[in-house]
Amino acid sequence: MSPSFDTPADQRPGRATPDGASASSAIVPVIMCGGSGTRLWPASRESMPKQFIPLLEDLSNFQVTAKRFADPAFAKPLVLASSDVRFIAAEQLQAVEVEAEIVLEPMRRDSAAAVAVATCLAQRQGPETVALVVAADHLIADTEAFVAACLAAAEGARAGLIMTLGVAPTAPATGYGYIQPGAPVGAAGARRVERFVEKPDAETAARYIEQGYLWNSGNFLFRADVMAAELARHAPDVLAAARAAVAAAASDLDFLRLDADAFAKAPKISIDYAVMECTEAAGVLPVSFAWSDIGTWGAIWEASAQDRDGNAFKGKVEAVATRNSLVHSDGVLTTVVGLDDVVVVSTPDAVLVAARERSDSVKDLVAKMKAGRRGEVDEHLRMYRPWGSYQRIDAGARFQVKRITVKPGQRLSLQKHFHRAEHWVVVRGTAEVTIDDQVILRHENEAAYLPIGSVHRLANPGKIDLELIEVQVGSYTGEDDIVRFEDVYGR
Amino acid sequence: MSPSFDTPADQRPGRATPDGASASSAIVPVIMCGGSGTRLWPASRESMPKQFIPLLEDLSNFQVTAKRFADPAFAKPLVLASSDVRFIAAEQLQAVEVEAEIVLEPMRRDSAAAVAVATCLAQRQGPETVALVVAADHLIADTEAFVAACLAAAEGARAGLIMTLGVAPTAPATGYGYIQPGAPVGAAGARRVERFVEKPDAETAARYIEQGYLWNSGNFLFRADVMAAELARHAPDVLAAARAAVAAAASDLDFLRLDADAFAKAPKISIDYAVMECTEAAGVLPVSFAWSDIGTWGAIWEASAQDRDGNAFKGKVEAVATRNSLVHSDGVLTTVVGLDDVVVVSTPDAVLVAARERSDSVKDLVAKMKAGRRGEVDEHLRMYRPWGSYQRIDAGARFQVKRITVKPGQRLSLQKHFHRAEHWVVVRGTAEVTIDDQVILRHENEAAYLPIGSVHRLANPGKIDLELIEVQVGSYTGEDDIVRFEDVYGR
Repeated sequence: MSPSFDTPADQRPGRATPDGASASSAIVPVIMCGGSGTRLWPASRESMPKQFIPLLEDLSNFQVTAKRFADPAFAKPLVLASSDVRFIAAEQLQAVEVEAEIVLEPMRRDSAAAVAVATCLAQRQGPETVALVVAADHLIADTEAFVAACLAAAEGARAGLIMTLGVAPTAPATGYGYIQPGAPVGAAGARRVERFVEKPDAETAARYIEQGYLWNSGNFLFRADVMAAELARHAPDVLAAARAAVAAAASDLDFLRLDADAFAKAPKISIDYAVMECTEAAGVLPVSFAWSDIGTWGAIWEASAQDRDGNAFKGKVEAVATRNSLVHSDGVLTTVVGLDDVVVVSTPDAVLVAARERSDSVKDLVAKMKAGRRGEVDEHLRMYRPWGSYQRIDAGARFQVKRITVKPGQRLSLQKHFHRAEHWVVVRGTAEVTIDDQVILRHENEAAYLPIGSVHRLANPGKIDLELIEVQVGSYTGEDDIVRFEDVYGR
Repeated sequence: MSPSFDTPADQRPGRATPDGASASSAIVPVIMCGGSGTRLWPASRESMPKQFIPLLEDLSNFQVTAKRFADPAFAKPLVLASSDVRFIAAEQLQAVEVEAEIVLEPMRRDSAAAVAVATCLAQRQGPETVALVVAADHLIADTEAFVAACLAAAEGARAGLIMTLGVAPTAPATGYGYIQPGAPVGAAGARRVERFVEKPDAETAARYIEQGYLWNSGNFLFRADVMAAELARHAPDVLAAARAAVAAAASDLDFLRLDADAFAKAPKISIDYAVMECTEAAGVLPVSFAWSDIGTWGAIWEASAQDRDGNAFKGKVEAVATRNSLVHSDGVLTTVVGLDDVVVVSTPDAVLVAARERSDSVKDLVAKMKAGRRGEVDEHLRMYRPWGSYQRIDAGARFQVKRITVKPGQRLSLQKHFHRAEHWVVVRGTAEVTIDDQVILRHENEAAYLPIGSVHRLANPGKIDLELIEVQVGSYTGEDDIVRFEDVYGR
């Protein structure tokens, strides 16, 4: 049977009881955090991609995704992330109290390499371990229905199929790939995959829906040995690179860092092209829960609660004669007059105004700006670091002002600058300031001065966040004027 | 004859030669700076209204207007401004090296009172002095044509008419009042005014144009004695209040401050209602130079140089698939994707997105926000003061950070605060800091600390701007926590 909204969870077949899932039968969730979400610029940028931003609720989609695997049917999740976002991922998991193993990809290598790594890691827990590969940024509100679908699809996976979840379309969307289901297989409602098709135009999409096609959600369930065999057959280079990268992986603080030289050899190819479109083993479980890959601001508008004018506003927003629009403000008062069907997103250093129906084209804007080397394209004003964060709040010809937040117990690297002196004024908490041979404490409303060339370090020895205002004065205030002598984060 | 674009200036009749205008025959320009320009929010706000902002070029419209009277046909201009903007007006005049007398209106009292004041002041130079009343925020690119028109209209004024400049319409605009011209009068192309009509709808406007109506530009030329007589007849209360306010006016630094009690008695009424629509003496000179009151962002778009897509961009702007739009950025990267006919204006603390055709409705937005008491409605992030300016750059629960600029030779008031301490870090120039009984100098990269309750003062004894970063720490950081002991600006 196909999982549906109205089957009570405990009556579903194949449902694991709280303590009924043994290590070997538990599904290993693999959360893929790749992707930079450029179509959600300016909220999403390389320095903080969309899956880590609370776009719809207080938690990020990555956090919501991680929490989805609390059910004992699942083993401890694996998180595949790029090295750049490792501290964000770790901090966000900690905040929602989810334990996971964070595996660092040294560079971008599309989804086939990621699935291959997941396969190798799952194999450590037994050759027939079932892995569930999901994206960190998909929206699935009904966790119960999702879990039931995974359990049903796992039956197909255990029987040797590479299962996908095929979502019953609610509209002729042109932003998703489609799956044509074939003959039924097994008892849980699974079907063979007749074929995968690329994103269609609207007319084709409508025809697909009439013919019973499903949206390709990009979630996969498979037995590790089955996927390994299919990779060996269809994409042996990818598998070899992943195996070598896992074999030579190094533990780095709390992370497992894949070997860069080995991983670099993996061809850049998606799992769809590399395996799914070639394999004889593809299966699909039709599901009917609400799902979105919230890839564009238009999709976020659709997924948002709307007022009676069809508007979804967030933050400091005012509007007059405006309908069916999304307006998100991150601090700056953002106003709209007399427009329908627009998206307005304002951040402290960048504003996007787009036609809602064309919000997909934000990627063109981002591409154009990357070519023009605009810093706002990739970097946020607030930059996250393992010890906390910093944000530039003002800058002039020979100075720069930052607000710096240091988490309790954290410390920055021991460093010096050749071109700037720094004035620190503590506005919250307590700072332990090292200046050359001296270590001093500075409390709220106290200041410290760091002359040019002094070797210094900032730490928060306290129990609450330390916040300070840093005024840099000098002939050059770039981030790269730094000599690091010692760093607890191994940078 | 009517002035036109292709008559060389020196062949125009009535043209004053460089030294041919005696004090008594020179026209006295009166620049009216009232009006808050709410339809041009967020660039224009109470704290810095549109006429003082460089919207179209490097100079503000007030500056461009003031420079228009360099011709010896004109006497030294009078500037009528509210007390709030007096330092901005003085500074902007100084920057373009225009000498003028700045007359301060103690409160808002519409245009009849302002014209009455202008009349009384012009009478000081002789009863038959011709005054030319212009708005500070109108756009007239062709100064030569404008000057020629003023000289031609002055002939009508000297003959006893209250002359207006009637602009030949270029489109059936609904944002302007219209004038129906009557019988010719005099030799310079002037006509009697048949009637003034209010802003029409588009259909009526088209009919008006067919019938030869002109736009009412709101510029007036009159003999002081004629206007005084007409005011005495049609609006005696206004004239009496203006006379008393001028008689009891006080010199305040470089300003002439009208007497508040007397001026307050002037009824709030426009010169159009009070005099122009009742008088028998109204005349109009048809002119054909390009003119706009640039009252809306749509009008600014029209007046701006546009690229081949019809776009007018200013500042840090990127756009994709966007046409016929105005995008102004004051610092923040501002982007548009897939929209036509929009207006986007971004400032560090407020963003406006509007349909270009509906940019008139910005006033509704501003009214709504005033009701909601949003600070961004009236106040700019950067506030101008007689000594310089300050700008909030960050704020938190118990702190606030400002960038303060003090002009050479200027000093702030001697003051103290009950709830906050202040840290000053000089990033440019030299500060003279008074702390209780002590006076110290602080240079670039030096700091000073002002404990809670200390009596302090900041001054710039140097020859270049002083810039400093002020970090306020305390339980309350509002502007009203200040006790002033002494202030050179009489605040």
